[in-house]
Amino acid sequence: MIDSNRLWQSIQELGEIGETSGGAMMRVTGSDADKRARDLLVQWFEDAGLDVSIDPVGNIVARREGRTDAAPIITGSHVDTVPEGGKFDGVVGVLGPLEIVRTWNDDGFVTDRPVELVVFTEEEGTRFGTGLLGSLVATGKLGLEEALALTDEEGTTVEAVLDRIGYSGSGALNLEDAAAFLEMHVEQGPLLDQSDAAVGVVETIAGITHHDVMFRGEADHAGNTPMEMRMDAFAGAAEFALTVEEVATSAGDETVGTVGKADVFPNGTNVIPGEVSLGVDIRDIEGKRLCDVVERLRDKAETIEIERDLDVEWETLLDVSPSRMDQEIRSELVSAAEACGFEYMNMVSGAGHDAMNVQEVAPTGLLFVPSEDGISHSPREYTAAEDIRKGTKVLERTLREMATIEETTPV
Amino acid sequence: MIDSNRLWQSIQELGEIGETSGGAMMRVTGSDADKRARDLLVQWFEDAGLDVSIDPVGNIVARREGRTDAAPIITGSHVDTVPEGGKFDGVVGVLGPLEIVRTWNDDGFVTDRPVELVVFTEEEGTRFGTGLLGSLVATGKLGLEEALALTDEEGTTVEAVLDRIGYSGSGALNLEDAAAFLEMHVEQGPLLDQSDAAVGVVETIAGITHHDVMFRGEADHAGNTPMEMRMDAFAGAAEFALTVEEVATSAGDETVGTVGKADVFPNGTNVIPGEVSLGVDIRDIEGKRLCDVVERLRDKAETIEIERDLDVEWETLLDVSPSRMDQEIRSELVSAAEACGFEYMNMVSGAGHDAMNVQEVAPTGLLFVPSEDGISHSPREYTAAEDIRKGTKVLERTLREMATIEETTPV
Repeated sequence: MIDSNRLWQSIQELGEIGETSGGAMMRVTGSDADKRARDLLVQWFEDAGLDVSIDPVGNIVARREGRTDAAPIITGSHVDTVPEGGKFDGVVGVLGPLEIVRTWNDDGFVTDRPVELVVFTEEEGTRFGTGLLGSLVATGKLGLEEALALTDEEGTTVEAVLDRIGYSGSGALNLEDAAAFLEMHVEQGPLLDQSDAAVGVVETIAGITHHDVMFRGEADHAGNTPMEMRMDAFAGAAEFALTVEEVATSAGDETVGTVGKADVFPNGTNVIPGEVSLGVDIRDIEGKRLCDVVERLRDKAETIEIERDLDVEWETLLDVSPSRMDQEIRSELVSAAEACGFEYMNMVSGAGHDAMNVQEVAPTGLLFVPSEDGISHSPREYTAAEDIRKGTKVLERTLREMATIEETTPV
Repeated sequence: MIDSNRLWQSIQELGEIGETSGGAMMRVTGSDADKRARDLLVQWFEDAGLDVSIDPVGNIVARREGRTDAAPIITGSHVDTVPEGGKFDGVVGVLGPLEIVRTWNDDGFVTDRPVELVVFTEEEGTRFGTGLLGSLVATGKLGLEEALALTDEEGTTVEAVLDRIGYSGSGALNLEDAAAFLEMHVEQGPLLDQSDAAVGVVETIAGITHHDVMFRGEADHAGNTPMEMRMDAFAGAAEFALTVEEVATSAGDETVGTVGKADVFPNGTNVIPGEVSLGVDIRDIEGKRLCDVVERLRDKAETIEIERDLDVEWETLLDVSPSRMDQEIRSELVSAAEACGFEYMNMVSGAGHDAMNVQEVAPTGLLFVPSEDGISHSPREYTAAEDIRKGTKVLERTLREMATIEETTPV
């Protein structure tokens, strides 16, 4: 039986690694905190009898052998964080499965298929700008060489930071050979928390696009440049940001648009901004509408360029189509929830997850547990121990079911 | 006769101190570059036979004795820069007077009144947040203790940085005893450059207010938080920034409003901004209208607070009333320009200058030379050698005239 206390204790213990004075998590790829978190996980995996290997992009694979050497069931998530993030995002999808293994060990239970726990590298894209990095490489969507050569703001490569913390391995994570991939994650939105459902069974993960939109004007003296003679990059960026809000809102309930990042240059109160770079995030569960929204924003950027005499440069850094989760796995998740006596909710995910990449090479499912008040990517992110227990129970039942090989024995 | 080449060479030589690889100037108070620039100036002043002293806030005073010990004429400006500034802002008002002294030395000319050259500390407010610092202290508008205790972003005090570079002196700068104060400065705006005038005679310096406006919302996940459930601090800040532009523009030609600075937290593309702090600069040559504009913006901030469910905090960091330049000195400047055969323009200054503080304790005049394309606070800031020569010539004639003591001799 899932030991809710043991699971909660592990979450708290991992949550002390990289905790800032304000209670937020700051665990970026390749940091000392990342190394300590990874070392602790490896230790726990080995203590649970798992066979641990590290692949060349730093993904951790912890294998529990089954009664057969059939294709494995893989489950996992990530433990890196955004700047000033929380303790649950990613972590419940790593420590929930660990608790399942510990429970199986306690019970002496062995699955038919092998079960592998995976911890993906740089899911958040915080340090190297490319989110879902570990699963991009493991699914062949991004070449290893290219991934290792990505640099952070100081010019340090992925390869260098993995070498530094000792997580540049020679193991293999073969997702395309998996019988199934399952990810459990906090919802990072308010819907489950506002409902009576214990878990969410994800049907679709929204498509995500990230854009860097650079506005270039003229840095001038704030006092001596008449209003009509200005080429104010921040005013242009502000106009654009309000349009992002307006277009995303009017597109409907399943579209979101965010300007999360703004870097102003030279950034002095008495200097008209000469350059402003905006980090823009647009998501939609319908691919066509996502394209339309981005197109409307590009048009607006061009209008601002002309009307304000600015130079606007648009760079798309991420463009992932919406993805459907595997029908059969969704049914398994629903059956498991029902068998446990928990209410469930069919839902969409506005957040991107490694499951999004994995579904291209293997049957994939995504299970949500509630986020209190829908808050995430914040130190106030919280999921109650009881909610994590319920999600882990549903995941356990699903893994157990899917790791069972139905023998088509002649009677 | 003003040696235009010698003056230009000195400007270039000083402009090599603190020059960045991109050609911009970065000479903040108390930096190594500041020390080197000050050391060079002191050397030049002493080479020109001036008696140099340093006051307790680091202002440099270089005195040339006259035929009498009557009240001196003081002239000067500053050599600190904004981040990524230019080579002319402040510098022409220090090296122009030095060239005048050199010329007088060459000619063996001695004024009746003593003439003092002054280099004010931290005019830009780049490091310690309080602009015009040297003249604030020298005019008694800010206490010495308070000024020395100001800290930069790392918590280092003015006192500590002046001690470090050896410019914490015991000399005195007695502006209230001056017969007159004259400052020559680049316009930092486009009007002179677009006209046929060689120099600008400033009638009024605009009032300046600086405000830090902090928008606090909720940092949430950019993908899973529906548009209508957001408390997006950046969207609120963007709406406010566009209002600053709109209100300043509609207030008329003599009002300017700028959002020059924006700091976003946590500043990740996929996180809805939880906090945005804006640096806002509002200026007007009419005090009443300036108050009205600020009041309208405060109202808007309150509206945004309510409509967007944000917390908005308003802190006014600087509030200086518009100031009129001395009528008699303006006449002297006009006469000097006419005597030199140069066209002049009566104008207002949108930029703040140390003259703004000095006019409260002594008769004060402000003379402008052109800024090419009106650009300043930028590496592209430029004033042609010929324009600097003309301004210096007008200043020389004015200083000579004002340093002359008319003897009311009985015939």
